[in-house]
Amino acid sequence: MTRSPLAPTGFPYLPPVAGVTLRVARAQYKTWDRCDLTFVTLDEGTSVAGVTTTSKCPSPEVEWCRDALVLGKARALVVNAGNSNAFTGNRGRAAVEAIAARVAQHLDCQPSDVFVSSTGVIGVPLPIDKAEAGLDAAFAAQPCGWEDAARTIGTTDTFEKGAVTTAVVGGRTVSLVGIVKGSGMIAPDMATMLGYVFTDAAVDPAFLQRALSDANRKSFSCITVDSDTSTSDTVLAFATGAADNDPLTDDDGDGADAFRAALADLCMQLAHLVVRDGEGASKFIRIDVDGAESDTSAHRIALSIANSPLVKTAIAGEDANWGRIVMAVGKAGEPADRDKLAITFGGVQVASGGLAVEGYDEAPVTAHLKGQDIEIGVDLGLGEGRATVWTCDLTHGYISINADYRS
Amino acid sequence: MTRSPLAPTGFPYLPPVAGVTLRVARAQYKTWDRCDLTFVTLDEGTSVAGVTTTSKCPSPEVEWCRDALVLGKARALVVNAGNSNAFTGNRGRAAVEAIAARVAQHLDCQPSDVFVSSTGVIGVPLPIDKAEAGLDAAFAAQPCGWEDAARTIGTTDTFEKGAVTTAVVGGRTVSLVGIVKGSGMIAPDMATMLGYVFTDAAVDPAFLQRALSDANRKSFSCITVDSDTSTSDTVLAFATGAADNDPLTDDDGDGADAFRAALADLCMQLAHLVVRDGEGASKFIRIDVDGAESDTSAHRIALSIANSPLVKTAIAGEDANWGRIVMAVGKAGEPADRDKLAITFGGVQVASGGLAVEGYDEAPVTAHLKGQDIEIGVDLGLGEGRATVWTCDLTHGYISINADYRS
Repeated sequence: MTRSPLAPTGFPYLPPVAGVTLRVARAQYKTWDRCDLTFVTLDEGTSVAGVTTTSKCPSPEVEWCRDALVLGKARALVVNAGNSNAFTGNRGRAAVEAIAARVAQHLDCQPSDVFVSSTGVIGVPLPIDKAEAGLDAAFAAQPCGWEDAARTIGTTDTFEKGAVTTAVVGGRTVSLVGIVKGSGMIAPDMATMLGYVFTDAAVDPAFLQRALSDANRKSFSCITVDSDTSTSDTVLAFATGAADNDPLTDDDGDGADAFRAALADLCMQLAHLVVRDGEGASKFIRIDVDGAESDTSAHRIALSIANSPLVKTAIAGEDANWGRIVMAVGKAGEPADRDKLAITFGGVQVASGGLAVEGYDEAPVTAHLKGQDIEIGVDLGLGEGRATVWTCDLTHGYISINADYRS
Repeated sequence: MTRSPLAPTGFPYLPPVAGVTLRVARAQYKTWDRCDLTFVTLDEGTSVAGVTTTSKCPSPEVEWCRDALVLGKARALVVNAGNSNAFTGNRGRAAVEAIAARVAQHLDCQPSDVFVSSTGVIGVPLPIDKAEAGLDAAFAAQPCGWEDAARTIGTTDTFEKGAVTTAVVGGRTVSLVGIVKGSGMIAPDMATMLGYVFTDAAVDPAFLQRALSDANRKSFSCITVDSDTSTSDTVLAFATGAADNDPLTDDDGDGADAFRAALADLCMQLAHLVVRDGEGASKFIRIDVDGAESDTSAHRIALSIANSPLVKTAIAGEDANWGRIVMAVGKAGEPADRDKLAITFGGVQVASGGLAVEGYDEAPVTAHLKGQDIEIGVDLGLGEGRATVWTCDLTHGYISINADYRS
């Protein structure tokens, strides 16, 4: 797979997070020559929070994680790549249970302390024997680094995605490291694909859940590649507590604020990396909608623009076809007044008050569209609602990848 | 433009409709060598009904037609191709008013008797001088046939679209003839692109409106090419009354039923022709959803499947990737129970009860997907709600057409 032209130049340096040990192995879920099972062990006392897909057809892994999240603690994470195990009935459920049981046996913990995700083709039960053999191999393997783990959780991804940030909490500097995978079937609704955040901070699970939900709402829930929401979307945050700070709660003032901000920043970095690996993407597109009747309305309008095949193909063609943006605003089903609408490309106003700006300077707009980072602004002129959404363009690459991908 | 592989072998024979006179002319809205202005005159006493886009950014033509429809009568229809005149502020409105005034002067009627549509690029005011010169030329031209008119209203269409049917009303056989244009920006919400139906029957305008709205709901509102709803979607039905039957109303029993059925049949034929000319289409796809909680819910789920880029590219790749259908059902936001879901391709059940049908015969499914007409069935197993939607696949052709189309 050719590396996305929007990929960063390399994988960033991600420091170890105390209390987190990474291992990878070959379960051979597909006939490929690569590691496809990631096994993360977490020190005792690790708290966990998560957000999962709102799909009505979730994978058994998603259901398992939802149940386990209620308890708020974690000892391990297993990620299988190459098979999503979704829509596989009781056999799929049995595979998840077998994985959790095997890990619980290895670590002498409860199965409910084990979080499981799978990604890949839908409808094929995950083979239990391969999963168990893979787990045994992983358990025996040497620990690895973040880049290996980030590579191992990927499927159609063209580069490894990870990010790091820090926060000062109770006088201690804690680190937050995250990895994520995703390239197609990206239109997260509460969460996206598979993303994992690890911190050495000690964090109360309820606080961690609220902080993650908030961060997610402004990051993963604001990206779309192709409007298709996965059956397996999951973002989990693990806090090992190895930094030995007093466990963070909502009452911790500055420390809580710093942690929330760091988590939000990390989720945003990871979400952008997913868009930058959008299937076939050649442009990274930011869409800002202002002046809507509410933030929710602004978000829906921004998604209507971001998911419009005609807008996405126009950007691919480097065409400042703002008429298609008018179309996408109009079809969103949200309050809008054609004659108050204003549109900018790269900050240059091209339409306002219901018609084109007479004689606007096309040169900077054309130059902007030839770049890789495209900014579209829409002002509805109705109220104070605003939202930002990130997406990529729609190119021949997307068609090639998805018309050729065999089920 | 290469003729769509899904096009019918030729344009059907469409008989003249008494009371309807067609003319075409060159207004040269673009620098092209073709007729682009269609001028239809209608005998006095013609009643009219219409459905228009629900876009919040409608074209001034759509607004003009909505106002004129209140009066229920028509003497002329003007269709401009190459410029949609949408999002052009007062200048766009002035162009529509000038066209109506010019026609009213030629025909000695009221401007409100003149219906106007325009299709093409958004955001460029329709040049009034070209429109007026084109109208004058059309008025002086010899009448033409349906195929010429169907060609003249087209833009990115690759073939002319027309259909005919008849109904027996009050002992008289009346004909219903329709033409339609549309290929991209097709996700009608109440109506699609531009469609015109003509009948020699005498029909009460209120009855005509109800019959058209019903027909539209089951035809144009059930097709999608790319999920993008146009700013200009309009379907108008004109009844000249030249057949001299007693004007049809809801009280006319069999005659009313026959007319309703004929109109519904005609709209369905025309809607299917639009899908068959979907930009880049290589497959005509029918999606039946049964067992939903309501018809509305079934319709939304069917559209979620039909608009999914991953489903559309799978069909383009002739891949029975029913996992993507599970995904599209799951993301629709409508009631669904993964473990009651059943899916068929060409009538062959491939998944049921929340998992793949063990050892189903792949041969007929593979053969079905290699054909041009694809049938996907989804049974939700929840209730009695059902809906059918028609769409096409998503191919490199769509990208080529829309990334290269210059604004």
